Amino acid sequence: MTEKRVILGIDPGTNLMGYGIIEVINKKPSVVDLGVITLKKNSDHFQKLQQIFNQTDDLIKNYKPDELAIEAQFFGKNVQSMLKLGRAQGVAISAALSHQLPVTEYAPRKIKMSITGRGDASKEQVAAFLKSIFGLKEIPENLDATDGLATALCHYYQTSQPQQETSYKSWKDFINKNPKKVV
Amino acid sequence: MTEKRVILGIDPGTNLMGYGIIEVINKKPSVVDLGVITLKKNSDHFQKLQQIFNQTDDLIKNYKPDELAIEAQFFGKNVQSMLKLGRAQGVAISAALSHQLPVTEYAPRKIKMSITGRGDASKEQVAAFLKSIFGLKEIPENLDATDGLATALCHYYQTSQPQQETSYKSWKDFINKNPKKVV
Repeated sequence: MTEKRVILGIDPGTNLMGYGIIEVINKKPSVVDLGVITLKKNSDHFQKLQQIFNQTDDLIKNYKPDELAIEAQFFGKNVQSMLKLGRAQGVAISAALSHQLPVTEYAPRKIKMSITGRGDASKEQVAAFLKSIFGLKEIPENLDATDGLATALCHYYQTSQPQQETSYKSWKDFINKNPKKVV
Repeated sequence: MTEKRVILGIDPGTNLMGYGIIEVINKKPSVVDLGVITLKKNSDHFQKLQQIFNQTDDLIKNYKPDELAIEAQFFGKNVQSMLKLGRAQGVAISAALSHQLPVTEYAPRKIKMSITGRGDASKEQVAAFLKSIFGLKEIPENLDATDGLATALCHYYQTSQPQQETSYKSWKDFINKNPKKVV
Protein backbone atom coordinates (compact mmCIF):
# COMPACT_ATOMS: atom_id res chain seq x y z
CA MET A 1 0.00 0.00 0.00
CA THR A 2 1.33 3.43 -0.89
CA GLU A 3 1.89 5.64 2.13
CA LYS A 4 1.78 9.32 1.28
CA ARG A 5 2.31 12.36 3.45
CA VAL A 6 2.44 15.99 2.37
CA ILE A 7 4.15 18.42 4.77
CA LEU A 8 4.12 22.20 4.57
CA GLY A 9 7.06 23.85 6.33
CA ILE A 10 7.09 27.59 6.94
CA ASP A 11 9.39 30.19 8.42
CA PRO A 12 7.14 33.18 9.04
CA GLY A 13 8.62 36.61 9.66
CA THR A 14 7.18 40.10 9.80
CA ASN A 15 8.45 41.03 6.31
CA LEU A 16 8.53 37.74 4.45
CA MET A 17 7.66 34.09 4.86
CA GLY A 18 9.68 31.21 3.47
CA TYR A 19 7.87 27.97 2.67
CA GLY A 20 8.59 24.51 1.40
CA ILE A 21 6.29 21.61 0.60
CA ILE A 22 7.51 18.04 0.61
CA GLU A 23 5.75 14.87 -0.37
CA VAL A 24 6.81 11.61 1.27
CA ILE A 25 5.85 8.52 -0.71
CA ASN A 26 6.83 5.18 0.80
CA LYS A 27 9.31 6.92 3.11
CA LYS A 28 11.01 8.78 0.26
CA PRO A 29 10.74 12.57 0.61
CA SER A 30 10.73 14.79 -2.47
CA VAL A 31 10.22 18.52 -3.06
CA VAL A 32 6.85 19.70 -4.36
CA ASP A 33 7.47 23.44 -4.15
CA LEU A 34 9.40 26.05 -2.25
CA GLY A 35 9.44 29.82 -2.29
CA VAL A 36 9.13 33.10 -0.45
CA ILE A 37 6.08 35.25 0.15
CA THR A 38 7.18 38.86 0.31
CA LEU A 39 4.88 41.11 2.28
CA LYS A 40 4.23 44.46 0.66
CA LYS A 41 6.50 47.06 2.20
CA ASN A 42 3.97 49.86 2.26
CA SER A 43 1.28 47.73 3.90
CA ASP A 44 0.24 48.44 7.44
CA HIS A 45 0.68 45.77 10.11
CA PHE A 46 -2.82 44.30 9.72
CA GLN A 47 -2.58 44.22 5.93
CA LYS A 48 0.64 42.23 6.32
CA LEU A 49 -1.09 39.82 8.68
CA GLN A 50 -3.92 39.51 6.16
CA GLN A 51 -1.37 38.65 3.43
CA ILE A 52 0.22 35.98 5.64
CA PHE A 53 -3.20 34.48 6.38
CA ASN A 54 -4.39 34.53 2.76
CA GLN A 55 -1.19 33.19 1.27
CA THR A 56 -0.80 30.41 3.83
CA ASP A 57 -4.45 29.56 3.21
CA ASP A 58 -3.74 29.47 -0.56
CA LEU A 59 -0.73 27.17 -0.06
CA ILE A 60 -2.91 24.80 1.98
CA LYS A 61 -5.72 24.85 -0.59
CA ASN A 62 -3.30 24.29 -3.48
CA TYR A 63 -1.10 21.57 -2.00
CA LYS A 64 -3.44 19.99 0.57
CA PRO A 65 -0.73 19.20 3.15
CA ASP A 66 -1.51 16.79 5.99
CA GLU A 67 0.53 18.75 8.52
CA LEU A 68 2.13 22.13 9.14
CA ALA A 69 5.62 22.48 10.59
CA ILE A 70 6.71 25.93 11.67
CA GLU A 71 10.15 27.33 12.43
CA ALA A 72 9.77 29.29 15.63
CA GLN A 73 12.45 31.54 17.01
CA PHE A 74 11.98 31.74 20.76
CA PHE A 75 14.54 34.43 21.49
CA GLY A 76 14.67 37.94 20.13
CA LYS A 77 16.09 41.36 20.66
CA ASN A 78 13.12 43.03 22.27
CA VAL A 79 9.57 42.42 23.43
CA GLN A 80 7.93 44.53 20.72
CA SER A 81 9.57 42.70 17.82
CA MET A 82 8.71 39.37 19.51
CA LEU A 83 5.07 40.42 19.85
CA LYS A 84 4.95 41.20 16.12
CA LEU A 85 6.73 37.96 15.25
CA GLY A 86 4.28 36.09 17.49
CA ARG A 87 1.38 37.66 15.61
CA ALA A 88 2.85 36.65 12.24
CA GLN A 89 3.29 33.09 13.54
CA GLY A 90 -0.19 33.10 15.09
CA VAL A 91 -1.79 34.14 11.82
CA ALA A 92 0.04 31.43 9.84
CA ILE A 93 -0.87 28.86 12.52
CA SER A 94 -4.52 29.95 12.29
CA ALA A 95 -4.61 29.31 8.58
CA ALA A 96 -3.53 25.73 9.34
CA LEU A 97 -5.94 25.35 12.28
CA SER A 98 -8.83 26.55 10.11
CA HIS A 99 -8.12 23.54 7.84
CA GLN A 100 -7.79 21.20 10.86
CA LEU A 101 -4.09 20.58 10.18
CA PRO A 102 -1.94 19.52 13.13
CA VAL A 103 0.83 22.04 13.83
CA THR A 104 4.31 21.33 15.19
CA GLU A 105 6.98 23.91 15.91
CA TYR A 106 10.74 23.57 15.83
CA ALA A 107 13.48 25.85 17.09
CA PRO A 108 15.94 26.98 14.36
CA ARG A 109 18.76 25.07 16.10
CA LYS A 110 16.75 21.86 16.04
CA ILE A 111 16.06 22.23 12.33
CA LYS A 112 19.72 22.89 11.48
CA MET A 113 20.79 19.94 13.61
CA SER A 114 18.23 17.68 11.95
CA ILE A 115 19.31 18.57 8.40
CA THR A 116 23.08 19.06 8.73
CA GLY A 117 23.97 17.38 12.03
CA ARG A 118 25.10 20.76 13.41
CA GLY A 119 22.89 23.15 15.38
CA ASP A 120 25.08 26.12 14.48
CA ALA A 121 25.07 25.52 10.70
CA SER A 122 24.66 28.61 8.50
CA LYS A 123 21.68 29.15 6.17
CA GLU A 124 24.05 28.44 3.26
CA GLN A 125 25.11 25.12 4.76
CA VAL A 126 21.49 24.09 5.34
CA ALA A 127 20.71 25.02 1.72
CA ALA A 128 23.72 22.99 0.46
CA PHE A 129 22.57 19.91 2.41
CA LEU A 130 19.04 20.26 1.03
CA LYS A 131 20.43 20.57 -2.52
CA SER A 132 22.26 17.32 -2.01
CA ILE A 133 19.43 15.45 -0.20
CA PHE A 134 16.78 16.34 -2.78
CA GLY A 135 19.07 16.64 -5.83
CA LEU A 136 17.97 20.22 -6.42
CA LYS A 137 19.37 21.77 -9.61
CA GLU A 138 20.08 25.05 -7.89
CA ILE A 139 19.81 26.77 -4.53
CA PRO A 140 17.13 29.50 -4.53
CA GLU A 141 18.35 33.06 -4.30
CA ASN A 142 16.42 33.73 -1.11
CA LEU A 143 17.44 31.31 1.63
CA ASP A 144 14.20 31.83 3.54
CA ALA A 145 12.72 29.41 0.99
CA THR A 146 15.24 26.71 1.95
CA ASP A 147 14.52 27.45 5.62
CA GLY A 148 10.87 26.60 4.94
CA LEU A 149 11.89 23.43 3.13
CA ALA A 150 14.29 22.50 5.96
CA THR A 151 11.42 22.88 8.46
CA ALA A 152 9.24 20.48 6.47
CA LEU A 153 12.05 17.91 6.16
CA CYS A 154 12.98 18.27 9.85
CA HIS A 155 9.36 17.49 10.75
CA TYR A 156 9.45 14.38 8.58
CA TYR A 157 12.71 13.22 10.16
CA GLN A 158 11.41 13.86 13.68
CA THR A 159 8.11 12.08 13.17
CA SER A 160 9.41 9.13 11.16
CA GLN A 161 12.21 8.21 13.57
CA PRO A 162 10.17 5.53 15.40
CA GLN A 163 10.04 3.60 12.12
CA GLN A 164 13.81 3.78 11.61
CA GLU A 165 15.96 0.80 12.49
CA THR A 166 17.86 2.73 15.14
CA SER A 167 14.77 2.97 17.35
CA TYR A 168 13.33 0.04 19.24
CA LYS A 169 10.60 -0.24 21.79
CA SER A 170 12.26 -3.12 23.61
CA TRP A 171 14.94 -5.77 23.30
CA LYS A 172 12.29 -8.12 21.90
CA ASP A 173 11.40 -5.53 19.31
CA PHE A 174 15.11 -5.26 18.38
CA ILE A 175 15.39 -9.02 17.94
CA ASN A 176 12.23 -9.19 15.87
CA LYS A 177 13.48 -6.45 13.56
CA ASN A 178 17.06 -7.76 13.36
CA PRO A 179 16.91 -11.54 13.47
CA LYS A 180 20.29 -11.85 11.73
CA LYS A 181 22.06 -9.81 14.41
CA VAL A 182 21.21 -12.28 17.14
CA VAL A 183 23.88 -14.97 17.18
CA MET B 1 -32.31 56.32 8.29
CA THR B 2 -31.19 53.96 11.04
CA GLU B 3 -27.43 53.74 11.34
CA LYS B 4 -26.27 50.55 12.98
CA ARG B 5 -22.79 49.35 13.87
CA VAL B 6 -21.83 46.24 15.80
CA ILE B 7 -18.36 46.20 17.37
CA LEU B 8 -16.60 43.21 18.91
CA GLY B 9 -13.94 44.14 21.45
CA ILE B 10 -11.49 41.54 22.74
CA ASP B 11 -8.65 41.32 25.21
CA PRO B 12 -6.83 38.12 24.25
CA GLY B 13 -4.40 36.51 26.65
CA THR B 14 -2.65 33.17 26.74
CA ASN B 15 -5.00 31.72 29.39
CA LEU B 16 -8.25 33.54 28.81
CA MET B 17 -9.87 36.04 26.50
CA GLY B 18 -12.31 38.74 27.56
CA TYR B 19 -14.84 39.96 25.02
CA GLY B 20 -17.62 42.49 24.73
CA ILE B 21 -20.05 43.21 21.91
CA ILE B 22 -21.74 46.55 21.53
CA GLU B 23 -24.40 47.69 19.12
CA VAL B 24 -24.55 51.35 18.16
CA ILE B 25 -27.91 52.45 16.82
CA ASN B 26 -28.24 56.09 15.81
CA LYS B 27 -25.12 56.94 17.82
CA LYS B 28 -26.40 55.26 20.98
CA PRO B 29 -24.20 52.38 22.13
CA SER B 30 -25.68 49.47 24.07
CA VAL B 31 -24.32 46.14 25.30
CA VAL B 32 -25.18 43.00 23.34
CA ASP B 33 -23.03 40.54 25.25
CA LEU B 34 -19.86 40.27 27.28
CA GLY B 35 -17.95 37.40 28.80
CA VAL B 36 -14.75 35.45 29.18
CA ILE B 37 -13.46 32.51 27.22
CA THR B 38 -11.36 30.37 29.53
CA LEU B 39 -8.76 28.25 27.78
CA LYS B 40 -8.52 24.73 29.10
CA LYS B 41 -5.63 24.54 31.51
CA ASN B 42 -4.41 21.12 30.44
CA SER B 43 -4.40 22.00 26.75
CA ASP B 44 -1.13 22.32 24.91
CA HIS B 45 -0.18 25.63 23.33
CA PHE B 46 -1.66 24.81 19.89
CA GLN B 47 -4.90 23.50 21.38
CA LYS B 48 -5.24 26.83 23.21
CA LEU B 49 -4.64 28.71 19.97
CA GLN B 50 -7.26 26.50 18.31
CA GLN B 51 -9.74 27.39 21.09
CA ILE B 52 -9.06 31.11 20.63
CA PHE B 53 -9.57 30.79 16.87
CA ASN B 54 -12.75 28.72 17.12
CA GLN B 55 -14.37 30.79 19.82
CA THR B 56 -13.56 34.14 18.19
CA ASP B 57 -14.93 32.66 14.96
CA ASP B 58 -18.10 31.61 16.83
CA LEU B 59 -18.53 35.11 18.33
CA ILE B 60 -18.24 36.61 14.83
CA LYS B 61 -20.72 34.11 13.34
CA ASN B 62 -23.21 34.65 16.19
CA TYR B 63 -23.10 38.44 16.48
CA LYS B 64 -21.96 39.45 12.98
CA PRO B 65 -19.88 42.44 14.08
CA ASP B 66 -18.78 45.02 11.49
CA GLU B 67 -15.40 45.56 13.13
CA LEU B 68 -12.95 44.04 15.60
CA ALA B 69 -11.17 46.13 18.21
CA ILE B 70 -8.36 44.48 20.13
CA GLU B 71 -6.62 45.47 23.34
CA ALA B 72 -2.92 45.04 22.68
CA GLN B 73 -0.32 45.25 25.38
CA PHE B 74 2.93 46.35 23.77
CA PHE B 75 5.21 45.89 26.73
CA GLY B 76 5.86 42.76 28.71
CA LYS B 77 8.20 41.09 31.07
CA ASN B 78 10.11 38.88 28.67
CA VAL B 79 10.42 37.98 25.01
CA GLN B 80 8.99 34.46 25.38
CA SER B 81 5.78 35.57 27.05
CA MET B 82 5.42 38.33 24.43
CA LEU B 83 5.84 35.80 21.62
CA LYS B 84 3.05 33.67 23.11
CA LEU B 85 0.85 36.72 23.64
CA GLY B 86 1.54 37.77 20.04
CA ARG B 87 0.42 34.35 18.84
CA ALA B 88 -2.80 34.55 20.86
CA GLN B 89 -3.47 37.99 19.39
CA GLY B 90 -2.52 36.82 15.89
CA VAL B 91 -4.95 33.92 16.07
CA ALA B 92 -7.83 36.14 17.24
CA ILE B 93 -6.96 38.70 14.54
CA SER B 94 -6.99 35.90 11.92
CA ALA B 95 -10.50 34.89 12.88
CA ALA B 96 -11.58 38.48 12.13
CA LEU B 97 -9.52 38.70 8.92
CA SER B 98 -11.07 35.45 7.67
CA HIS B 99 -14.45 37.22 7.88
CA GLN B 100 -13.06 40.37 6.19
CA LEU B 101 -13.55 42.45 9.33
CA PRO B 102 -11.34 45.52 9.73
CA VAL B 103 -9.16 45.28 12.83
CA THR B 104 -7.98 48.15 15.06
CA GLU B 105 -5.76 47.82 18.10
CA TYR B 106 -5.59 49.97 21.19
CA ALA B 107 -3.04 50.14 23.99
CA PRO B 108 -4.52 49.47 27.47
CA ARG B 109 -3.72 53.03 28.53
CA LYS B 110 -5.61 54.46 25.57
CA ILE B 111 -8.67 52.35 26.40
CA LYS B 112 -8.65 53.38 30.07
CA MET B 113 -8.25 57.03 29.09
CA SER B 114 -11.09 56.79 26.60
CA ILE B 115 -13.55 55.25 29.10
CA THR B 116 -12.60 56.93 32.38
CA GLY B 117 -10.57 59.97 31.34
CA ARG B 118 -7.54 58.52 33.15
CA GLY B 119 -4.87 56.34 31.52
CA ASP B 120 -3.88 54.86 34.86
CA ALA B 121 -7.39 53.80 35.93
CA SER B 122 -7.72 50.37 37.56
CA LYS B 123 -9.76 47.51 36.04
CA GLU B 124 -12.32 48.10 38.80
CA GLN B 125 -12.64 51.79 37.88
CA VAL B 126 -13.07 50.94 34.19
CA ALA B 127 -15.78 48.41 35.15
CA ALA B 128 -17.55 51.00 37.33
CA PHE B 129 -17.59 53.54 34.48
CA LEU B 130 -18.99 50.91 32.07
CA LYS B 131 -21.70 49.99 34.62
CA SER B 132 -22.73 53.63 34.73
CA ILE B 133 -22.45 54.32 30.96
CA PHE B 134 -24.48 51.25 29.95
CA GLY B 135 -26.69 51.03 33.06
CA LEU B 136 -25.46 47.47 33.74
CA LYS B 137 -27.24 45.75 36.62
CA GLU B 138 -24.02 44.28 37.93
CA ILE B 139 -20.31 44.15 37.21
CA PRO B 140 -19.19 40.70 36.00
CA GLU B 141 -17.04 38.70 38.36
CA ASN B 142 -14.19 38.45 35.87
CA LEU B 143 -12.98 41.89 34.86
CA ASP B 144 -11.44 40.61 31.64
CA ALA B 145 -15.01 40.69 30.31
CA THR B 146 -15.31 44.41 31.07
CA ASP B 147 -11.89 44.94 29.47
CA GLY B 148 -13.28 43.45 26.26
CA LEU B 149 -16.35 45.67 26.51
CA ALA B 150 -14.16 48.72 27.21
CA THR B 151 -12.14 47.95 24.07
CA ALA B 152 -15.31 47.88 21.94
CA LEU B 153 -16.57 51.15 23.42
CA CYS B 154 -13.16 52.81 23.09
CA HIS B 155 -13.17 51.91 19.40
CA TYR B 156 -16.60 53.46 18.99
CA TYR B 157 -15.50 56.65 20.76
CA GLN B 158 -12.31 56.89 18.69
CA THR B 159 -14.02 56.34 15.36
CA SER B 160 -17.08 58.47 16.02
CA GLN B 161 -15.17 61.54 17.19
CA PRO B 162 -15.27 63.30 13.80
CA GLN B 163 -19.07 63.39 14.13
CA GLN B 164 -18.90 64.95 17.60
CA GLU B 165 -19.42 68.67 17.96
CA THR B 166 -15.89 69.26 19.25
CA SER B 167 -14.38 68.27 15.89
CA TYR B 168 -14.67 70.40 12.78
CA LYS B 169 -13.02 70.21 9.40
CA SER B 170 -13.02 73.98 8.97
CA TRP B 171 -14.52 77.20 10.26
CA LYS B 172 -17.23 76.87 7.61
CA ASP B 173 -17.98 73.38 8.88
CA PHE B 174 -18.24 74.76 12.43
CA ILE B 175 -20.70 77.46 11.33
CA ASN B 176 -22.80 74.98 9.39
CA LYS B 177 -23.04 72.69 12.38
CA ASN B 178 -23.59 75.46 14.95
CA PRO B 179 -25.66 78.19 13.30
CA LYS B 180 -26.90 79.45 16.66
CA LYS B 181 -23.39 80.09 17.95
CA VAL B 182 -22.65 82.64 15.25
CA VAL B 183 -23.86 86.06 16.39
